Amino acid sequence: MGLVVQKYGGTSVADVEKIRNVARKVIRAKEKGNSVVVVVSAMAGETDRLIRLAGSAAEKPVWREYDVLVSTGEQVTVSLLAMILADMGHSAKSYLGSQVKIITDGDHGKARILKVEKNGISRDLKSGKIVIVAGFQGVDGKENITTLGRGGSDTSAVALAAALGADYCEIYTDVDGVYTTDPNVYDRARKMTRVSYDEMLELASAGAKVLHPRSVELAKKYEVPVYVKSSFNDESGTLVTKEDKEMEREAVSGVTYDKNQAKVTVVHVPDMPGVAARLFTPLSDQNIIVDMIIQNSSIDGYTDLTFTVSKKDVGEARKLLEKAAKDVGAQGLLFDENISKVSIIGVGMRSHAGVASKMFSVLAREYINILMISTSEIKISCVIEAKYTELAVRVLHDAFGLDKEIGKI
Amino acid sequence: MGLVVQKYGGTSVADVEKIRNVARKVIRAKEKGNSVVVVVSAMAGETDRLIRLAGSAAEKPVWREYDVLVSTGEQVTVSLLAMILADMGHSAKSYLGSQVKIITDGDHGKARILKVEKNGISRDLKSGKIVIVAGFQGVDGKENITTLGRGGSDTSAVALAAALGADYCEIYTDVDGVYTTDPNVYDRARKMTRVSYDEMLELASAGAKVLHPRSVELAKKYEVPVYVKSSFNDESGTLVTKEDKEMEREAVSGVTYDKNQAKVTVVHVPDMPGVAARLFTPLSDQNIIVDMIIQNSSIDGYTDLTFTVSKKDVGEARKLLEKAAKDVGAQGLLFDENISKVSIIGVGMRSHAGVASKMFSVLAREYINILMISTSEIKISCVIEAKYTELAVRVLHDAFGLDKEIGKI
Repeated sequence: MGLVVQKYGGTSVADVEKIRNVARKVIRAKEKGNSVVVVVSAMAGETDRLIRLAGSAAEKPVWREYDVLVSTGEQVTVSLLAMILADMGHSAKSYLGSQVKIITDGDHGKARILKVEKNGISRDLKSGKIVIVAGFQGVDGKENITTLGRGGSDTSAVALAAALGADYCEIYTDVDGVYTTDPNVYDRARKMTRVSYDEMLELASAGAKVLHPRSVELAKKYEVPVYVKSSFNDESGTLVTKEDKEMEREAVSGVTYDKNQAKVTVVHVPDMPGVAARLFTPLSDQNIIVDMIIQNSSIDGYTDLTFTVSKKDVGEARKLLEKAAKDVGAQGLLFDENISKVSIIGVGMRSHAGVASKMFSVLAREYINILMISTSEIKISCVIEAKYTELAVRVLHDAFGLDKEIGKI
Repeated sequence: MGLVVQKYGGTSVADVEKIRNVARKVIRAKEKGNSVVVVVSAMAGETDRLIRLAGSAAEKPVWREYDVLVSTGEQVTVSLLAMILADMGHSAKSYLGSQVKIITDGDHGKARILKVEKNGISRDLKSGKIVIVAGFQGVDGKENITTLGRGGSDTSAVALAAALGADYCEIYTDVDGVYTTDPNVYDRARKMTRVSYDEMLELASAGAKVLHPRSVELAKKYEVPVYVKSSFNDESGTLVTKEDKEMEREAVSGVTYDKNQAKVTVVHVPDMPGVAARLFTPLSDQNIIVDMIIQNSSIDGYTDLTFTVSKKDVGEARKLLEKAAKDVGAQGLLFDENISKVSIIGVGMRSHAGVASKMFSVLAREYINILMISTSEIKISCVIEAKYTELAVRVLHDAFGLDKEIGKI
């Protein structure tokens, strides 16, 4: 008798017929003898509809009220799934974030889960009920409704799995697992059987949209095994789990890309202490996330500072930086939105030498110029011209032999 | 400095533009120096959409989950109104029933308000905020979401006004007051300046749909003055208030009709103790409301029992009664859906003699046959053939001089 948390995303619950399909999957898990907690997102398109409604009401939404509004999306899904399960003869009960309670901080629109109270759910599971929880939402210490930001339902599911001590968490989505690269870009992409938490984190932050990064962090912290599966077929999916020896046999396990970044250069900045802080503080104050940062060596006491921000933040960043650049005495600003970030990821990098140089020469062979480089323990990212993105992904995938499943477990 | 509770129904908040119009009315009340609590319904059509969704999910909805589903309608409206008020420069905060808390019993789909906790709202009002409350919904003792049934937002508003000790409650709707009869049936209908709680209760139960009866009961109990007004113009509306001498000057203050009743006759029932109970208990067990009940005098130990039920309950009632009628040894059942109930209402009836006989002769003069009669202290209802409804309303309105505003205050 196990305890399973299943999460179904928006496309899996897009209409009543699809929710019925979800109900059948839930019942199958239950009839295998498991206690089942189901986390659901809003029906596909519903959150967008609600956001448009907010946009038509006010230019700048009040975030507390925005959360009251958009959280209705999941509320609709949980109640429908509970009714459908009852209609199929199974006792089920829905929970909102505020009913669980999934306690978060008060950062509306992108709140972080602080604590999950499990007593109510445990009692219902013990009495044989299927428990359905609204994903994406919680409640702060003052009973205000909060939401976790886009993709937050993954995080809800993993947080519940951790709090309840579930055997594992299944994330059902519209893809059937984690791939070595985007199959839409390269048809030789291969589904991974297993991937480590750290690799999954780097994949997510490098642009692969399968799992919400925060959910992977939580899964890693509480060692929750996470299966990524398709809700439309019965294939085995990908297991996100603790790193082990097998995973290190290959140097690289995935290639990913991100076209949503823009490159910013602050030209001819006086190279003295405090300058970087004065440039970046206004950005972080407005919650603009700066990704890669590179500073050239100083020449005659001046340097250029280059970094990337999300394309959607370019307008706001330009406004803030024009002032800040003038303040620090920089010569000017350059913006380039025609870039993309291509990354290779793998825990094997730690033990395999020469991965970086191999990446650079593979790109050089195709005459792809590297504009920026950044590395972590298990990831190497290169910013290149956007038009070379797909070519770079394909040649790197080939060069590191990702189409061959050598490390099969 | 007064305290006002305003309630806006579904047609008043049908789209974002109409909600903006509501916001302007709210701000006007606020700028007169009042503390303002606003109760809103779901956007017109939204509750029906959600009910259809429930219907497509399960044949018999689970009522607990049904309430989770339909309560999202008001949740959307409160958040939009709060955003719009903020956009117009006014500090506002939305409350769900579960946040207020509006404590109800656990009778999902038609819960009754037991208690309103006012501390949070009072605090916000004191700090100058406009408070927006989701109508129609509450929460039971176990934190389950409940709804009050159709029209329940009126009740939410009056309950809040009572709990907060508001000076008065304004119900904004798509009509601009309470009329002597339905203006769609008779163009000589006149808007009443004032009407007593008891008259309003009888008007509501006799088929006039301006206010939810439960809201009038609450208003009477806590002596909350209620103004019924149009949200689309600035006319003065009708004040529902305590009875006074002025109101008694006229015998009759309104004529109303109800076409949603059906007549049931249980034929040739043995006239002995317990028979009525055995017939009606199965109906009340299924929450079928029996309105007028008439029992003819007994002949040879047998009688006929006639009563009315709502048309929508006829199918269910027939099933239950076929069994019950057999059990008590009745000869058979007759159903007639081609009827309507026409009523005259007025606190003046208590002091004016001959009102009933005048009603009967007015109908007789038009050859309208009276099928059933029931009376209360301030109401006389006659069941007649449905086709005579409008004629009966017009001749009664004329006969009792309702087009002339004699009792003007």
